[in-house]
Amino acid sequence: MTDFHAVIPAGGAGTRLWPLSRAQRPKFLLDLTGNGRSLIQQTWDRLIKVLPADHIHVVSGPAHAPLIQEQLPELVNLYAEPAPRDSMAAIGLAAAIIGQRDPDAIIGSFAADQTIADDDAFVAAVLEAKQVAESGLVCTLGITPRGPSTAFGYIEAGAELPDAETARAITRFVEKPDLATAEQYVAGGAHYWNAGMFISRTDVLLGHLARLQPELHAGLTTIGRAWDTPAGATTLGDVWPGLTKIAIDHAIAEPVSIEGGMGVVPGDFGWDDIGDFAALSELTDGTSDAILIDSDALAIADDGTAIAVIGIPDAVVIRTSDALLVTTREHAQRVKEVPEALRQLGRTDLV
Amino acid sequence: MTDFHAVIPAGGAGTRLWPLSRAQRPKFLLDLTGNGRSLIQQTWDRLIKVLPADHIHVVSGPAHAPLIQEQLPELVNLYAEPAPRDSMAAIGLAAAIIGQRDPDAIIGSFAADQTIADDDAFVAAVLEAKQVAESGLVCTLGITPRGPSTAFGYIEAGAELPDAETARAITRFVEKPDLATAEQYVAGGAHYWNAGMFISRTDVLLGHLARLQPELHAGLTTIGRAWDTPAGATTLGDVWPGLTKIAIDHAIAEPVSIEGGMGVVPGDFGWDDIGDFAALSELTDGTSDAILIDSDALAIADDGTAIAVIGIPDAVVIRTSDALLVTTREHAQRVKEVPEALRQLGRTDLV
Repeated sequence: MTDFHAVIPAGGAGTRLWPLSRAQRPKFLLDLTGNGRSLIQQTWDRLIKVLPADHIHVVSGPAHAPLIQEQLPELVNLYAEPAPRDSMAAIGLAAAIIGQRDPDAIIGSFAADQTIADDDAFVAAVLEAKQVAESGLVCTLGITPRGPSTAFGYIEAGAELPDAETARAITRFVEKPDLATAEQYVAGGAHYWNAGMFISRTDVLLGHLARLQPELHAGLTTIGRAWDTPAGATTLGDVWPGLTKIAIDHAIAEPVSIEGGMGVVPGDFGWDDIGDFAALSELTDGTSDAILIDSDALAIADDGTAIAVIGIPDAVVIRTSDALLVTTREHAQRVKEVPEALRQLGRTDLV
Repeated sequence: MTDFHAVIPAGGAGTRLWPLSRAQRPKFLLDLTGNGRSLIQQTWDRLIKVLPADHIHVVSGPAHAPLIQEQLPELVNLYAEPAPRDSMAAIGLAAAIIGQRDPDAIIGSFAADQTIADDDAFVAAVLEAKQVAESGLVCTLGITPRGPSTAFGYIEAGAELPDAETARAITRFVEKPDLATAEQYVAGGAHYWNAGMFISRTDVLLGHLARLQPELHAGLTTIGRAWDTPAGATTLGDVWPGLTKIAIDHAIAEPVSIEGGMGVVPGDFGWDDIGDFAALSELTDGTSDAILIDSDALAIADDGTAIAVIGIPDAVVIRTSDALLVTTREHAQRVKEVPEALRQLGRTDLV
C-alpha cells in the first residue's frame, strides 16, 4: 500500500469570530462547538483513524506552534513557517519534505479549522480520493451543498471516473457565486462546495508545481533537499521569505482542473467551516443557562458569566473576559470590521 | 425662619436597571450618569444647598445603611427600617421624630434615585414650596412634562394660589395615563409629572395621617415619642413590623388633593427618575470607547472591557463583571423580567 501522509495548514485568524478568535488564539485552536476538542484537535482525531501519528504534518506560524504542540501531544511533524506564504507554500513544504523521503507517497491536505459531523463517511471519502490520486489525478473532496450558499466556491463535476465508486472528473472551479447562480448549482446536482481538501501523489503535485509555479517549486525543492541535513533550518530561513505567496486553489487546482487533471469525490458528512457566528449558531446554542426572552440568540460567555437577552430574535452575543460582541446573525460577516477598528485604535491587545 | 428638614426614603431596587442595580447595590447607590456621584449623593448635594447636614434624614433598609453612610460621610440621621413598609411609613417615621422635637418644623421628602440638571431652579422651587407649606397645604413639586410620557403619574393643577409666585392648587392626582390621555395633558398645560416630592409642616402631615391612617399614625407616634429615649430602638423593633404598608401617594396625596389641601409648584429643572435604560440613554452615551457600527447603542461596561455592537440601532448593552444584559430601548421596561427569572432559577447571587 502506498504511503499516505496528511498535511494540516494551520493558518488564518478567523477575524469573523472575534472576540473568541484572536491573532494569538486563532479559530483552529478553539473549542467552538463545546465538545472539549478544538478544531485542530478534531481534525487530528479524524485523520488518526486513517494514518499513524508520524504521518500527520502541521504547518503553522511560529507564534502558534507551542499551543498546537500542547493541544496535539502526539504530533511529531510540526513545521513553523518563518512568515505566512499562503497555502501553496505551506502544503508544498510538506510535499517537498515527504517527497524527498518517499517520491511515491500520497499527500492529503486538510484545513485545521473545519468541523465534520460524520467521521466514518469522511474517512470513506478520503480513502476513495486516495485511490483516485494513485491514478495520477489531483483529487478533492466536494461537499454536497446543503443550500445555495454564496459563502463558498464551487467545484463543477463532469463525467464519472472509470472504475470509481462515486468520483467524478472536475470540469472547473468557480468562485463564490451570487445567489441566483448558487441556486442553479444546487438544483443542477453537478456542483459541490470547495472545502479546500486536496489529495495527490507528491510527484504529481510537485510536477504540476514545477510547471505552473517554477520559482516556488525550486524554492520548496531546495528546502526539501536540505530538510533532513544539518542545513535544514538555515535553508528554510534563507529561502522561505522569497517564496511566492499564492493559494493552492489558484496555483494548482484551477489550472489543473481546466486541463482535466483533477477528480472530485462527493462527500455528505456534515462538513462546516464555521465561517462566522451565523454558521456557529447552526452548530451550538451557546451558553446553556442564558436567559433568552423573546430571542433565539446565540449567547456565549466564555468566562462563565450570566447573559440575558430580551427582544432581539436573531442576536449574537459573544462575551470573553476582556471583550464583548453584540450583533445579529444577519450581520455576522461584518464582525471582521471590529478587529480592523481595534487595530486602528491601537488596541492590538484585543485583536 | 421655620426649621426645614429633608427626608430621603432610600428604597427600591431598580430591577429595570439590572445588571447595574442589584438587591445589595440598588439604583440610588449607583453613579449612573458617570459624573462621579451616585444618585443619593447627587440628592444630598442638592439638599445641602438649602439645609444643614443635620437636617437631612435618610430612611433605608438595614442592608444598605453601611454603604449609604460610606457614600454620605456627613450624614448624621440615618434610620434603618427593620423591614420595608413603603414610603408613608418611611416619611412618617422621619416626620414623627422631627415633629416630636419641633412641631412647627417643615419636612420635605425627596427620592434618593432621581437626577436633576438645574440645581438652582430646583432650590428655588423647593423654597417656594416651603412657603406654600407654611400656609398649611401639603405642597408638591410638579415636573413640567417634556413629552406625553405614560411612565409617570400626573398632577392636575387648578387655580393659582393667592400670594404665590407660581404655585397652584391641586385638583387631583391621576395614575399613569394612556398615550392619548397623556397627549391631552401635555397640550392642556395643567398637568405635571408627579416626582413624589412632598413638602409639608410636620403637624399638617401627621394631622392628615391621624385622620386618614389612624393606626399607622398611632404606631409612628409611639416610635417618635420613644425615639430620643433609651427605649427608642426597642420600640422601633416592636412597633414597625405591624405598620400599614402604603405609599404616601395613596395615604395622603390623593385623598388630601381631593379635599383641596394640596398645592403644586411647577418645576422645569431637568428632572429624571432614570426608570429604565431607555431613560438612562437620554442622559449618557455609556462607555466612550465602545465600537458602534451601524448602531446608536447605549453600551456600558462597568468592568472597563471592550464592547462592539454591529447593526442593532437601538441596542442596550450593559456589562458587569458577573452578568450581561442585551436588549433594545423598546424593551427597556421588560428588563425587570430578568431578575425575576434569575430568582426562579435560584441565582439570587445575581439579583
